[in-house]
Amino acid sequence: MASITRFARTSSSSLQVSTRSAPLALTARNFSTVKFNNKDRKERVVILGSGWAGYSFAKDLDPEKYERIFISPRSYFVFTPLLASTAVGTLEFRTVLEPIRRLDYGIGFHQGWAQDIDFANKTIRVEANANADSASKAVVPIGQGGQLNQASARGALFDVPYDKLVIACGAYSQTFGIEGVREHANFLRDVGDARRIRLRVLSLFELCAYPKGVDNLTDEDRANLLHFAIVGGGPTGIEYASELHDLIHDDLSKMYPDLLKFVRITVYDVSPKVLPMFDQALSKYAMDAFKRQKIEIRTQHNIERVRPADGKLGSEYGELKLKIKQYGDKEVGAGLVVWSTGLMANPLIKQLASKDFAVPISPEDRAEARRPKAKLATDARTGGILVDEHFRVRIETQTTDAAKGSEIVPTSSSNSLLRDVFVLGDAAVIESQRTLPKTAQVAAQQATYLAKVLNKANEGVIDVKDAPGFKFRNWGVMTYLGSWKAIHQGPRDELRGWAAWVLWRSAYLAKSMSWRNRFLVPIYWLVSWVFGRGISRF
Amino acid sequence: MASITRFARTSSSSLQVSTRSAPLALTARNFSTVKFNNKDRKERVVILGSGWAGYSFAKDLDPEKYERIFISPRSYFVFTPLLASTAVGTLEFRTVLEPIRRLDYGIGFHQGWAQDIDFANKTIRVEANANADSASKAVVPIGQGGQLNQASARGALFDVPYDKLVIACGAYSQTFGIEGVREHANFLRDVGDARRIRLRVLSLFELCAYPKGVDNLTDEDRANLLHFAIVGGGPTGIEYASELHDLIHDDLSKMYPDLLKFVRITVYDVSPKVLPMFDQALSKYAMDAFKRQKIEIRTQHNIERVRPADGKLGSEYGELKLKIKQYGDKEVGAGLVVWSTGLMANPLIKQLASKDFAVPISPEDRAEARRPKAKLATDARTGGILVDEHFRVRIETQTTDAAKGSEIVPTSSSNSLLRDVFVLGDAAVIESQRTLPKTAQVAAQQATYLAKVLNKANEGVIDVKDAPGFKFRNWGVMTYLGSWKAIHQGPRDELRGWAAWVLWRSAYLAKSMSWRNRFLVPIYWLVSWVFGRGISRF
Repeated sequence: MASITRFARTSSSSLQVSTRSAPLALTARNFSTVKFNNKDRKERVVILGSGWAGYSFAKDLDPEKYERIFISPRSYFVFTPLLASTAVGTLEFRTVLEPIRRLDYGIGFHQGWAQDIDFANKTIRVEANANADSASKAVVPIGQGGQLNQASARGALFDVPYDKLVIACGAYSQTFGIEGVREHANFLRDVGDARRIRLRVLSLFELCAYPKGVDNLTDEDRANLLHFAIVGGGPTGIEYASELHDLIHDDLSKMYPDLLKFVRITVYDVSPKVLPMFDQALSKYAMDAFKRQKIEIRTQHNIERVRPADGKLGSEYGELKLKIKQYGDKEVGAGLVVWSTGLMANPLIKQLASKDFAVPISPEDRAEARRPKAKLATDARTGGILVDEHFRVRIETQTTDAAKGSEIVPTSSSNSLLRDVFVLGDAAVIESQRTLPKTAQVAAQQATYLAKVLNKANEGVIDVKDAPGFKFRNWGVMTYLGSWKAIHQGPRDELRGWAAWVLWRSAYLAKSMSWRNRFLVPIYWLVSWVFGRGISRF
Repeated sequence: MASITRFARTSSSSLQVSTRSAPLALTARNFSTVKFNNKDRKERVVILGSGWAGYSFAKDLDPEKYERIFISPRSYFVFTPLLASTAVGTLEFRTVLEPIRRLDYGIGFHQGWAQDIDFANKTIRVEANANADSASKAVVPIGQGGQLNQASARGALFDVPYDKLVIACGAYSQTFGIEGVREHANFLRDVGDARRIRLRVLSLFELCAYPKGVDNLTDEDRANLLHFAIVGGGPTGIEYASELHDLIHDDLSKMYPDLLKFVRITVYDVSPKVLPMFDQALSKYAMDAFKRQKIEIRTQHNIERVRPADGKLGSEYGELKLKIKQYGDKEVGAGLVVWSTGLMANPLIKQLASKDFAVPISPEDRAEARRPKAKLATDARTGGILVDEHFRVRIETQTTDAAKGSEIVPTSSSNSLLRDVFVLGDAAVIESQRTLPKTAQVAAQQATYLAKVLNKANEGVIDVKDAPGFKFRNWGVMTYLGSWKAIHQGPRDELRGWAAWVLWRSAYLAKSMSWRNRFLVPIYWLVSWVFGRGISRF
């Protein structure tokens, strides 16, 4: 393992290295409130994660008032609602990406994984990761322990100090520990996932198009290879199924007319109903649309295993076998399994929640030798970190400086909050609003709220604790259903069919992050409509 | 190895399999001239290779008159003049790709490598290759023998019969057997190469941007990692150097201002002059432009070895060391080596040229038991296949059916031509025009010529041999020099600077193959100019 380097900031434009053995160079820091006009020393806000919460926050935080430092294993933000469109070639991949370094040229960025956080000394341990390939995939837990990703733990380690910390590292894909999912299924959360899915679908068609008899490929093999299995009937799974239907119906049908008879798309879900966030009427509308498009919906089906078939075709494009409880020993063949069954706690969050730490103290308290120990409070059901309505982290303090393993006694827990640490998005659970869904909409609203509060706090207009608490405003939910139809359920209205599809496209265009992509996305919509989707494979 | 399947055509829309042990099912074929109105049985033209020659030919050949079957390891044509622009993010990758299956939906396509050709029985042995990853890289010889690519020889084998065959499989990148080039240098001939180069350049900047001290990276390391070495001073190498300069100057300089002082771009060439196809004045203009842009040109420099440095940073983004004859034992560090030193014969061509084969006979001659043996005639200097001015293959026939290894005596060689086999582009050498360069322009003109001749021959207007021979028409040469400047040398005129750059862009746009890309390319030029180049890494 590489040596660990520590940095202390002495000015806003340079970093100085202190050796590991030296005392932490925190004396130069100023814990008192930084005034707006103090140009020499802006408060440093470190943001962990470049998803909806982290990126929206960084975008809205005023760079005149704070120094912003991003730490993320990937170098961009993904506009996830349109990711499924890139997975079928309607949009080019980069039209849903916003590079962090383009946010504005003054942003600080260290590409890497946050491995640990020292709340007492206000530093983050980062593992360098400039390797683009490992960064573009959805992160899935290795084994069932949910450890930090050991496969990539090869980068150099270094520490980054913060004044304020915003933890927005999201959640991992939930696999429920089902055998073979991590190895053989495809997730659809990052652009690398979309690229692999796109390549695989197109390659499967090319493979099945070889003349009869090549590699002893039978029509049964073709029917299995062109069976596209989607596990999880939430918006991600449903939208991917719909977009895949469009790709096959609009484009591949012309190029591979003889293969159409083999194609099947199936969505599996354990619950009795897909798209549970929509009311009965919209849900029925969706089911009817799928029936017309021959997308099969299999509710109350439990996948028990995914394995590669004993293939004639090598592992890369070989057939997969799904063991499904309802079918007993008879396995279902598929060429592609897309897995979108929800989220589980991020291992960094698990690790932070599992251990005691010394409570940070202000310089005035520094003389006091013994500091109280504390623990992050978590939501028992989801494992998320409990925060108040200002996204400040709730901690459980110990009354005595007890030895490790002793009982922790929370005291006046409602008042114990970790200074200068905020958690946003999927990693956070607001104590008073525990039922908020883990969606992009929620994360983005939280981020915008917190950025505004901190911008005002820096001006001395308000203190964070005096700001009105966060309130989620439901903008409604939308799902694309294929063939230029969608459903929209707002707080007071609903819409279906072509009009909902127009709303779906307009809303996503309006929310798209940069002018560059606001310009390019409709051009690709036009190009795909006029000339067909992008089908070149590389 | 998988079993081998043979196909015989019985109608224009279906393929039938015959087992290997059965006699070759050629009886259903009709070797006599196919008439234009014979709708039941169009002549099948098989095209090997989807580069400039093969793709242009397929595009111009009339599908009403011929059945077109493409065999190519990759699924698309690459518009190579703009490939360097995709390698720096000015253009999106797919804007320089034309999928074969989009050519029109009636085209036949088998993705795979032509492993061998049986001229006597008019069949091609194909190795299936639907693996997108291996297909998108420039093919470089393994070892020095120039064998067929063994690394990919894992696909199923099958035979495809032809009536007419157009060999347009191009050439391989020339490495001169220099140690480490194949393993550690990047070529720039296919879109997979461009993708790897783009990722690597951007990742190197990210890596060097880590705070001082991380992984003990010194400023000397940074200077080595941000040294971009281009070997070969032809248009490919020069244009990549120029585009890279623009990327760094226009975009990366804003994101990584502290790193600019470490950046160096060097072009190495063995000859005394780069861009040898331009006259003295244009060449001097180019050299002055490079000087202003701080691109170093090192002529008369011989690279002797490329190896990875004993790195702190792992192999993927580790430093490379170049051993250069002129510097003796002192090696030059670099983060990227782009290799573009020219072409060498394709191993399929080598293999075909090295062996005897039975001369194909018409059905009328079928009774004759003993057929004469023959050998393809090749150009001694380049190894290319000798063709006449109609791209028909010259063969050297044996007077006797001599045992293998006996002396081959060419007889009246100027008259011996292989029936129905044509060679185009880099693989061909026209006997009477041996000095034609191996360029896209030459290949495309040859392809268009042959397609027109065959279209007319099919109408019975002319016989191939009576058509006027191919004449190359020099449209001039152009090279981009960076900073919106270019040089153009036409047969009777020349142009330099901004005007030449406008011509460069207009000409490429006009020649771009599809309306889709003719529409998208200028949009990306605009987007890159207004918003900056695409810098997201994945």
